[in-house]
Amino acid sequence: MQAKFNFELISQDEGARLGILTTAYGHIDTPAFMPVGTAATVKGMMPEAVAETGAQIILSNTYHLMLRPGPDRVKHLGGVRKMMNWKGPLLTDSGGFQVMSLGPLRKIDENGVTFKSHLDGSPHLLTPEISTEIQHKLDATITMVFDECTPYPATKSQAADSMELSMRWAVRSRKAFIERKGYGQFGIVQGSVYPDLRLQSVQRLNEIGFEGYAIGGLAVGEGQELMFETLKVTTPYMKIEQPRYLMGVGKPADIVGAVLRGVDMFDCVLPTRSGRTGQAFTRYGTVNIKNARHADDLRPLDENCSCPACNNYSRGYLHHLFKSDEIQGLTLLTWHNLTYYQDLMRAIRKAIKERQYNTFVSNFYREQTQGDIPKI
Amino acid sequence: MQAKFNFELISQDEGARLGILTTAYGHIDTPAFMPVGTAATVKGMMPEAVAETGAQIILSNTYHLMLRPGPDRVKHLGGVRKMMNWKGPLLTDSGGFQVMSLGPLRKIDENGVTFKSHLDGSPHLLTPEISTEIQHKLDATITMVFDECTPYPATKSQAADSMELSMRWAVRSRKAFIERKGYGQFGIVQGSVYPDLRLQSVQRLNEIGFEGYAIGGLAVGEGQELMFETLKVTTPYMKIEQPRYLMGVGKPADIVGAVLRGVDMFDCVLPTRSGRTGQAFTRYGTVNIKNARHADDLRPLDENCSCPACNNYSRGYLHHLFKSDEIQGLTLLTWHNLTYYQDLMRAIRKAIKERQYNTFVSNFYREQTQGDIPKI
Repeated sequence: MQAKFNFELISQDEGARLGILTTAYGHIDTPAFMPVGTAATVKGMMPEAVAETGAQIILSNTYHLMLRPGPDRVKHLGGVRKMMNWKGPLLTDSGGFQVMSLGPLRKIDENGVTFKSHLDGSPHLLTPEISTEIQHKLDATITMVFDECTPYPATKSQAADSMELSMRWAVRSRKAFIERKGYGQFGIVQGSVYPDLRLQSVQRLNEIGFEGYAIGGLAVGEGQELMFETLKVTTPYMKIEQPRYLMGVGKPADIVGAVLRGVDMFDCVLPTRSGRTGQAFTRYGTVNIKNARHADDLRPLDENCSCPACNNYSRGYLHHLFKSDEIQGLTLLTWHNLTYYQDLMRAIRKAIKERQYNTFVSNFYREQTQGDIPKI
Repeated sequence: MQAKFNFELISQDEGARLGILTTAYGHIDTPAFMPVGTAATVKGMMPEAVAETGAQIILSNTYHLMLRPGPDRVKHLGGVRKMMNWKGPLLTDSGGFQVMSLGPLRKIDENGVTFKSHLDGSPHLLTPEISTEIQHKLDATITMVFDECTPYPATKSQAADSMELSMRWAVRSRKAFIERKGYGQFGIVQGSVYPDLRLQSVQRLNEIGFEGYAIGGLAVGEGQELMFETLKVTTPYMKIEQPRYLMGVGKPADIVGAVLRGVDMFDCVLPTRSGRTGQAFTRYGTVNIKNARHADDLRPLDENCSCPACNNYSRGYLHHLFKSDEIQGLTLLTWHNLTYYQDLMRAIRKAIKERQYNTFVSNFYREQTQGDIPKI
């Protein structure tokens, strides 16, 4: 049986692409944003509410779930989707990024990474085979290959070595992957900011063959300009007929620019994490609801937003919830931010469909500089 | 204009009463349980979800809201109901209980209570007039008189002095109350555990005349038996045709027993606060979801419960959420507990209607002793 998604490329507007990715658990309109549900829950949100915002796929973190409650327990409880009552498809990362950034003690060799749990210090091993097996136990609809996220900055020689290791791990990850209809595995392009390394990585992954291709090792401190530059010299070499996923990105402006450079899928903790700290995304930039100027404000966060936070509550009340450390504040701002991100993706898809994406990009950047809803 | 609710007493089964209280913002089927939304939010719950459980009225705390965000700000934001998007009626307490229990420094005299905010130490004064005015600013559908909650234990002389002060404050509270159609004010019976003082207090309040009568000064450490004894010598003297509200009560077994002794309305933080600590109420007693024995349990909390926590999630997953400090765990267990309480009130009303309340009480106490769902 072929492990294949049906990815239909509907239209293109210069670099920007409009598509539909069909999986065992429903389709994903691309360009798509995937909310992050690290520990098998999108923090503070009912899964029905996540779906209401327009999200069609979410991401969970292998690293966190392998440590707690553990892959066998997740499997026993029916996998992440069933366990958390998420009806759509699920993407899991491979744990590679987290063992590098969260594991306090780690050792990388050809076999994989040994590290200690940030929860209790217990020793663990992740290899391409183990990561893939765990992701199967989590019941990931989209499994990611186990790779090394090349640190930034890296010399060309370091970046080459790291990329080569990731490509050897990609071969092993693919071998460990069990094909099932409507499920797939994505390879991850590495090579830091070096165009020829990125090209080599793309070619190596194409030779292996995956259902989709991610671009890794970006949004790690190189800045937006260099990220866009790297995309520009990477995506033209990637297969046209398969989905492209830029991992861990990003701010709204990053997403808008990356779509222009041929990216189809995104994930980021920004809308959820910012929501929990009182930061709201709006068409006019970000708003910190904890700021005292909102205390008596009867206006909604964004008059054009359809989310419950904007439909039913004033800024003054949201401000009160945050000042009082009330859970409902976190939920409402997360809901708003996820709605903002999905509204953005809808607007992006509409613009591509109408072949107006360049105009959309210009308008977007102009509005974002205003800082808040203009006073009447 | 007469400030009158329409309270219709539909049927009685010995002491237990079935009624409908109609307010400006909808009716309340009694016996009723009011969830607590201290700071103008039922912690962790969307107001739509609170209504879905069957709650028809909620309670907010004057003390907390007067300190943050302040009565004038709440009024500016449209009152508690509009501010928090709660469509039904709202009851506010008078702040009397909280200034006694939360204010670090307080002084009581004939005029009222001076105290310092537990938030910032700022000085405040509550009097019958000020409390009533604040409750008007909060837009309470049911306003409570400002009283002194007599500490327990109290000598008869102390209890008498305290009750006398509360009755003088009740006169002043009533004078300060602005009558509006569909809104009302409740007097509060005091007198500690002394039957003759309770009787005097009822008579004094009846002379003033209120839209309903609360029983205060119970559930303060006297124990269930003495609480039931006190109810038994108090409710027979209360007006039959007006609602009776037992403040701050309580555990399911307290409610079941108090209904038998003629109480119509209840409020308590127990279902919401317990939900946040991982304690779930079930027909068979309480369950601590943090207990390791639930980690692999595929069963719901309660197979007969209709709430989302029981319909869509295993005990194993709920356990995981609590072990991982995930917000969604608090929300789901609060949702379950509020559903449990409203299901209990529905069952109580059904039993009274069918004149089977004594049988209901016997069955209830038998089931509650089992500790958890019996193993199959």
